[in-house]
Amino acid sequence: MTTSQNTHAALPDPGRLIALIDGVFAVAMTLLVLDLKLPPQTQGGDLARALLQMLPALLVYVIAFASVAGYWMLHHSLFRHVACWDGRLVLLSLVNLLFVTLFPVTANIVGTYPQEPLATACLSANSLLYCLSAGATWSYLAAHRHLLVEETRGRLLRQNARVMVLVAAGLALAIPLAFLSVYLAYALWIMGVPVAAAVFGREMFG
Amino acid sequence: MTTSQNTHAALPDPGRLIALIDGVFAVAMTLLVLDLKLPPQTQGGDLARALLQMLPALLVYVIAFASVAGYWMLHHSLFRHVACWDGRLVLLSLVNLLFVTLFPVTANIVGTYPQEPLATACLSANSLLYCLSAGATWSYLAAHRHLLVEETRGRLLRQNARVMVLVAAGLALAIPLAFLSVYLAYALWIMGVPVAAAVFGREMFG
Amino acid sequence: MTTSQNTHAALPDPGRLIALIDGVFAVAMTLLVLDLKLPPQTQGGDLARALLQMLPALLVYVIAFASVAGYWMLHHSLFRHVACWDGRLVLLSLVNLLFVTLFPVTANIVGTYPQEPLATACLSANSLLYCLSAGATWSYLAAHRHLLVEETRGRLLRQNARVMVLVAAGLALAIPLAFLSVYLAYALWIMGVPVAAAVFGREMFG
Amino acid sequence: MTTSQNTHAALPDPGRLIALIDGVFAVAMTLLVLDLKLPPQTQGGDLARALLQMLPALLVYVIAFASVAGYWMLHHSLFRHVACWDGRLVLLSLVNLLFVTLFPVTANIVGTYPQEPLATACLSANSLLYCLSAGATWSYLAAHRHLLVEETRGRLLRQNARVMVLVAAGLALAIPLAFLSVYLAYALWIMGVPVAAAVFGREMFG
Repeated sequence: MTTSQNTHAALPDPGRLIALIDGVFAVAMTLLVLDLKLPPQTQGGDLARALLQMLPALLVYVIAFASVAGYWMLHHSLFRHVACWDGRLVLLSLVNLLFVTLFPVTANIVGTYPQEPLATACLSANSLLYCLSAGATWSYLAAHRHLLVEETRGRLLRQNARVMVLVAAGLALAIPLAFLSVYLAYALWIMGVPVAAAVFGREMFG
Repeated sequence: MTTSQNTHAALPDPGRLIALIDGVFAVAMTLLVLDLKLPPQTQGGDLARALLQMLPALLVYVIAFASVAGYWMLHHSLFRHVACWDGRLVLLSLVNLLFVTLFPVTANIVGTYPQEPLATACLSANSLLYCLSAGATWSYLAAHRHLLVEETRGRLLRQNARVMVLVAAGLALAIPLAFLSVYLAYALWIMGVPVAAAVFGREMFG
Repeated sequence: MTTSQNTHAALPDPGRLIALIDGVFAVAMTLLVLDLKLPPQTQGGDLARALLQMLPALLVYVIAFASVAGYWMLHHSLFRHVACWDGRLVLLSLVNLLFVTLFPVTANIVGTYPQEPLATACLSANSLLYCLSAGATWSYLAAHRHLLVEETRGRLLRQNARVMVLVAAGLALAIPLAFLSVYLAYALWIMGVPVAAAVFGREMFG
Repeated sequence: MTTSQNTHAALPDPGRLIALIDGVFAVAMTLLVLDLKLPPQTQGGDLARALLQMLPALLVYVIAFASVAGYWMLHHSLFRHVACWDGRLVLLSLVNLLFVTLFPVTANIVGTYPQEPLATACLSANSLLYCLSAGATWSYLAAHRHLLVEETRGRLLRQNARVMVLVAAGLALAIPLAFLSVYLAYALWIMGVPVAAAVFGREMFG
């Protein structure tokens, strides 16, 4: 980072932008949990049954947490190669954050209606919109490589763009599949995490 | 920042103040979403209709998010030229933050009463108060330029003051206009974001 | 900070501890706002009356925000002279944070029962406990000055200890006074902020 | 940290990962407080009785806060010896964070059913899962010591692993003991904090 500040002295380094982004990710990841509440019930209610009723919402929580955490990892893997920023990169990042903050809402919709295809479509659409706005950020950086740290220009951007096309395609697929059976959407989400980790983990951080 | 610490060795650098400010902005931007809840309804309720009922609140959310994000960008564009702080700059910044933390409240009021002029006036007034307190911060820095990084003194402050006068005037206008028709206030808010981005984006970050 | 890292190479610098503390302060300052909700009411309710009913809670919010912001300023004024930490300083800081996170609770109690002396006593007691734990932190640093940046040892600690004795005394006084009249506690809280700013502002940050 | 960046130039420093982790810890520690609400009651309700009814939840809050704060201290004591990261360390850290964000949920379950062994088992299990995932992180670092700052390799990892085995054993014990008497679980939790502080405080930060 010291190096990049020297090479790109005219443009500001992205420290504060990253601090805001990490803050929003951290709050969003923790707010997801606010929907994991014991169902309201009478005093004589059975705690064991109440805990069992929470299991679908817990599964949705873990899926949403894994999604947001995965998007943070992708963001991290991109931004550690960003040396400085301009106004449009900030605007694109704020649009990214808009979709990050919506995850607690769409995850809550799925947690409340776990059997409704329309509900799972909301979460898939939220992820899809995030992927598209993240893809726009990468395209912008690919076209403005003076914002990047010298040695990594090009190669990384193509890698990340490839990741995003695959993720977005999977999510677009999950929307109609849910109307066949809602469990297909869940299966696709759950499979997505280890597949993405296995395929892209080495590539992203290697 | 290294340079400014050398030139202004007697006064502390604003790192921790900025960390607190970014934290409050990040939490406020994410808390806005807490009001986007599915309307409580009976088990047999129609999810599609419930989602449609959420649309006005979603629009208010996007407007409020864009406002807070825009104020963060303005804050960022100012503070990257601040080299050190004194007690009064901290006090002014904490007053700024008071109005940042109120956005989830006033956005909630508009989300609950989207058709009430008085509700939109609350959000406009919140923005207006933020702009006035931000303007006071800039005036203070204009009168105490030893707190700024050398080369940018003067020019930037005048630019930002100009932005703020325009934004505050627009917001002051939105309050009475809402009592003619509440949609005029929405139109003014929505138009404000791209206009501000187009007019001031280059200037602020160029 | 570079200097202090060199002089105190054996002990770690307090960067991460401060990051956690600023995060908790930022979240607590923003969570205070969660209690500022429109009173639940029927569809035909009068918004103007509902807003008027929120005014006492808004006043309590501003008081609580000013208290927490003031404690952050005091913390900031102390910790910028801390060069490194040991395990006990971390423990004391985490006890401080415990009382910071309780402010949204005690402010909510006052906001719900603004006329009850017992409610105002809860907020006063919360502040008192914070002041006592902050005082313990300062006493610890006064007795372990090798944790401080060289040139400021001694003088600053005595100043801050003086601030804390006065604040704690005022808060201890507010508890019994509230049982005479609850407005005496409010007056004491409201007067406290400008008095503290005027008396200690220059001293703390000069 | 400057030193480690030089020695490990090929791998990125863990600054942003730590920023996310500290953000999640800060938010989780503050969200714990959201369950400390006055019991809903009629207007003529007795505030003193309502406050008394909050005492068990306050005790649970203090226990949960102390647990999370303690885990943050352990995390801090480990990560200040981490010089850089790879993809698997990030993955392990995100799994850690998953269990951190669950503490507000499990603490809420205990706060709602303070007398139920099953409820205390949820909080114990949450802590146990956190300890196991933290232990996995340490094992990973022990097997990949090129990620650590040179001089501290080995010794520290063994210390922390020892802490974790003891904590995890205590927590595993608290689950069945609660079914004998729920107060045994509380006693074990409460004793755990000073014991851990006394035994490991010096070792961790010395």
